[in-house]
Amino acid sequence: MVEIIRIETRGQGLYEFTDQLRQLLNSSGVREGLCTLLIQHTSASLTIQENADPSAQQDLENWLNRLVPEGDPLYTHVFEGRDDMPAHIKAALTATTLSIPVSEGRLLLGTWQGVYCWEHRHDRQIRSVAVHIG
Amino acid sequence: MVEIIRIETRGQGLYEFTDQLRQLLNSSGVREGLCTLLIQHTSASLTIQENADPSAQQDLENWLNRLVPEGDPLYTHVFEGRDDMPAHIKAALTATTLSIPVSEGRLLLGTWQGVYCWEHRHDRQIRSVAVHIG
Amino acid sequence: MVEIIRIETRGQGLYEFTDQLRQLLNSSGVREGLCTLLIQHTSASLTIQENADPSAQQDLENWLNRLVPEGDPLYTHVFEGRDDMPAHIKAALTATTLSIPVSEGRLLLGTWQGVYCWEHRHDRQIRSVAVHIG
Repeated sequence: MVEIIRIETRGQGLYEFTDQLRQLLNSSGVREGLCTLLIQHTSASLTIQENADPSAQQDLENWLNRLVPEGDPLYTHVFEGRDDMPAHIKAALTATTLSIPVSEGRLLLGTWQGVYCWEHRHDRQIRSVAVHIG
Repeated sequence: MVEIIRIETRGQGLYEFTDQLRQLLNSSGVREGLCTLLIQHTSASLTIQENADPSAQQDLENWLNRLVPEGDPLYTHVFEGRDDMPAHIKAALTATTLSIPVSEGRLLLGTWQGVYCWEHRHDRQIRSVAVHIG
Repeated sequence: MVEIIRIETRGQGLYEFTDQLRQLLNSSGVREGLCTLLIQHTSASLTIQENADPSAQQDLENWLNRLVPEGDPLYTHVFEGRDDMPAHIKAALTATTLSIPVSEGRLLLGTWQGVYCWEHRHDRQIRSVAVHIG
């Protein structure tokens, strides 16, 4: 089964969509296999992170913003906005695709793991994630 | 086939488990397909690296520790230990899932490639890696 | 189907091979499934990036070269050349494997996404990417 999940983002940060994935997995009827994701953008990415404490997500965001600041004089690709080139770099440093083993109809994530869309731009966006379950 | 591999770690560094993967692949009987891995933790990660020279692994570890130091005043998520927030950041910058093509019953790794669990915490841990072969 | 794609590189930078992948997918006859890639080297990597504007790729390359410079006194693994240890670090920070969902015989990439081999060494190389389609 292949489906597109759409995720609305409202500025930089992590947007969890583990529940949407679980619903898709349930509706697929697949009991054992793989759930594979690709985010169809180069200024947002995917990550599996701790979903217990929001402070960890905030630190992650702040740390990455300090590593890849806006307005770096190194950038020549600037006409799509100050947050565009940093977004491409952040996407390259994190994940564009993920593959999650499935067993007994469940995603084999660890206890504290959630699946996130990592938005690297400031404006509202609709992000598409292609999901293959099989 | 889905199995959990357990890896004992004794502090920060790279722990190779290519041989465990090969044994699992042999016992699966799969000749052509994929071997997909997900580490079920957010303070350790996966990497495929050179297994010929330990100095490359040591430099990798030292470089990442310098990029993501402990005690950074930016961190607010500090109650799980000084090495916890750096561990989450390192995990986000490296891989949580990997997919390795299989042909003629063999992992299609390059000559010098090994599969590693990358431990980012100081204490001893038992790390779980979910493996799908099919 | 498992095949090896070979990519000739002529120094550091991004080398797109989306068309080679599409040809392979066409010849496989697979309509729905996954296209999974592993680069069989530890001094080059894979990335999915914007293929519209070459300036974004140039900035990406320059930014990563500044983050992971040659001649860093931290390196002890130096006998394979000044660009070798930086290449391993860059490979660890980017992707070694990618999985792309396939639907209706097409790679489900976003409109502006291309698949690239990211060469981290200066000399000419022939890079091998193992591709599983199924």
